[in-house]
Amino acid sequence: MKQYQVAELHEIFNAGLGKIKTAIQRSSPEGLYQPIDYSLEMGGKRIRPLLLLMSYNLFSDEIENAIPAALAIEVFHNFTLLHDDIMDNAAVRRNRPTVHKQFSENNAILSGDAMAFLAYKYLLSAPMQSQKEVLELFTSTAIEVCEGQQFDMEFENRNNVTESEYIEMIRLKTAVLLGCSLKAGALLANSGEKVAAQLYDFGINLGLAFQLQDDLLDSFGNQETFGKMIGGDIIANKKTFLLIKALEKVSGPEKAELDGWLKKSDFNQQEKIEAVLKIYNSLNIKLLTQNKIDTYFSVCTEILESIEIETEKKVLLKNVSNKMMNRIS
Amino acid sequence: MKQYQVAELHEIFNAGLGKIKTAIQRSSPEGLYQPIDYSLEMGGKRIRPLLLLMSYNLFSDEIENAIPAALAIEVFHNFTLLHDDIMDNAAVRRNRPTVHKQFSENNAILSGDAMAFLAYKYLLSAPMQSQKEVLELFTSTAIEVCEGQQFDMEFENRNNVTESEYIEMIRLKTAVLLGCSLKAGALLANSGEKVAAQLYDFGINLGLAFQLQDDLLDSFGNQETFGKMIGGDIIANKKTFLLIKALEKVSGPEKAELDGWLKKSDFNQQEKIEAVLKIYNSLNIKLLTQNKIDTYFSVCTEILESIEIETEKKVLLKNVSNKMMNRIS
Repeated sequence: MKQYQVAELHEIFNAGLGKIKTAIQRSSPEGLYQPIDYSLEMGGKRIRPLLLLMSYNLFSDEIENAIPAALAIEVFHNFTLLHDDIMDNAAVRRNRPTVHKQFSENNAILSGDAMAFLAYKYLLSAPMQSQKEVLELFTSTAIEVCEGQQFDMEFENRNNVTESEYIEMIRLKTAVLLGCSLKAGALLANSGEKVAAQLYDFGINLGLAFQLQDDLLDSFGNQETFGKMIGGDIIANKKTFLLIKALEKVSGPEKAELDGWLKKSDFNQQEKIEAVLKIYNSLNIKLLTQNKIDTYFSVCTEILESIEIETEKKVLLKNVSNKMMNRIS
Repeated sequence: MKQYQVAELHEIFNAGLGKIKTAIQRSSPEGLYQPIDYSLEMGGKRIRPLLLLMSYNLFSDEIENAIPAALAIEVFHNFTLLHDDIMDNAAVRRNRPTVHKQFSENNAILSGDAMAFLAYKYLLSAPMQSQKEVLELFTSTAIEVCEGQQFDMEFENRNNVTESEYIEMIRLKTAVLLGCSLKAGALLANSGEKVAAQLYDFGINLGLAFQLQDDLLDSFGNQETFGKMIGGDIIANKKTFLLIKALEKVSGPEKAELDGWLKKSDFNQQEKIEAVLKIYNSLNIKLLTQNKIDTYFSVCTEILESIEIETEKKVLLKNVSNKMMNRIS
């Protein structure tokens, strides 16, 4: 059985994406399909479809059979970005105007909707043996992603979010789609239920570690390599793991200071970032977050090791997860 | 084989709807599920699920097996209302505030999204033999409904919409979902392809006649029985069949007058309605529209007659379509 390299899988996926983009460009009404084409043009790391293909390749090398599901996952992911960017009022994504800014809010709503259904169209076009199972997994995952986004929005207006609530939110909003990608790849290759469930759990823990790392980088990353401004979460009072832990641990005059910064609507951005980082440092938040990331990542590694497949087949997933965790951007 | 009456089917459907509403009410986060519950509470005529059940009952009386698909169609239809009402900036539906007014725009976007996936969840929960076919039909229909909504929005900014463009728009926006409901019911009962296709065409022609009648009632209906204000379309310059035909036929001073009303942003509503209705009357628009409705409705009736099933089984669909066309609201 051929073991594909990441670059090869990326290339095969891009070829499939190119085909559906051509079909989309030729579809009418243009006003509906142009924003879809624009959103798929944006690049992105294609992490989810690559995980799906890697997982599939653990059990089969007929990669073409997994491409429709990989496309479905990527189109679904981009659908969530279109709608989330409206809800979060985000103007820029991947250095380009978001769809609702480039086109209109109505376009972003409706083209997003069409993408959700296109995802099903691609899923249904695959020659699948475990089609019903994959469709059920995809559907329950999609509902969970909506639930995660709702929790995320509700947390904006709360100052008493607990750690476990936060972990549940990022599990729903981020981790389940990684788990779904990995499990779908396995199911499509007839891996059997046990290993499919293990790969799902691997994805969940990877997703949690990945999102926590994202939180950490936003406050402690390197400005030049991170790509976006350091401290964006701090300025926006975003309920990240860091802020939640800080609010939990802080006391005395530091508590008064942190509360003050959270309430202040008129402030110098750099001043707020520096002040909050100073509090984070005094509370050891960076180490605490890093420990949490390490915990999830060890679980992730253990699960991968426990999967009963030849070690050399697992190298790709191991490398990719390592790369995801050592990323600087 | 038991022939169900409309009232019985309605009751069975409502029982199924009650069950999913209970599940929705118990789901978390409440902020996601409450708007869904609200939108399903709104009543409505449940035309689409009833058509599905009637179509199913032509071939089978195991109605319970068709309930999940009937729920999927109704939840999908309500999803489109949530998002359309944002896009059309509609404040009221069925005498209650629309979801984005009652809750928020973000709620209407996200809860709408969740409804789209819930529709698939219900579809997938059915004990189906033709599941893949029904899922493909449902998915392609959903994409067409998005295309129809896009055309509808684009027509708002155009004064040169042709009759055939308009018919294609209402086919996509309204008729395909009626066709899908009828065809899905047939497929689920293993009707065979031929009769499923006939029922689809019956639904398309019924849908076209129904939407044209909606246009007609908005300008020529009885204020008291129609439920909403007569002339709403005229005030909003909505590109209905009536306005498109009027713009096509009008000439001379009447054309100048009609163009004037379309351009005027500051006007007395009653005055505009009366003036435009006078032009419609002089151009015989009411008769012209009625003829078009009659044409589609005859096709509809002919298709139903040509379907090779005992005549007594077809009475229900015949009665319901008659009722839909003689409706006063």
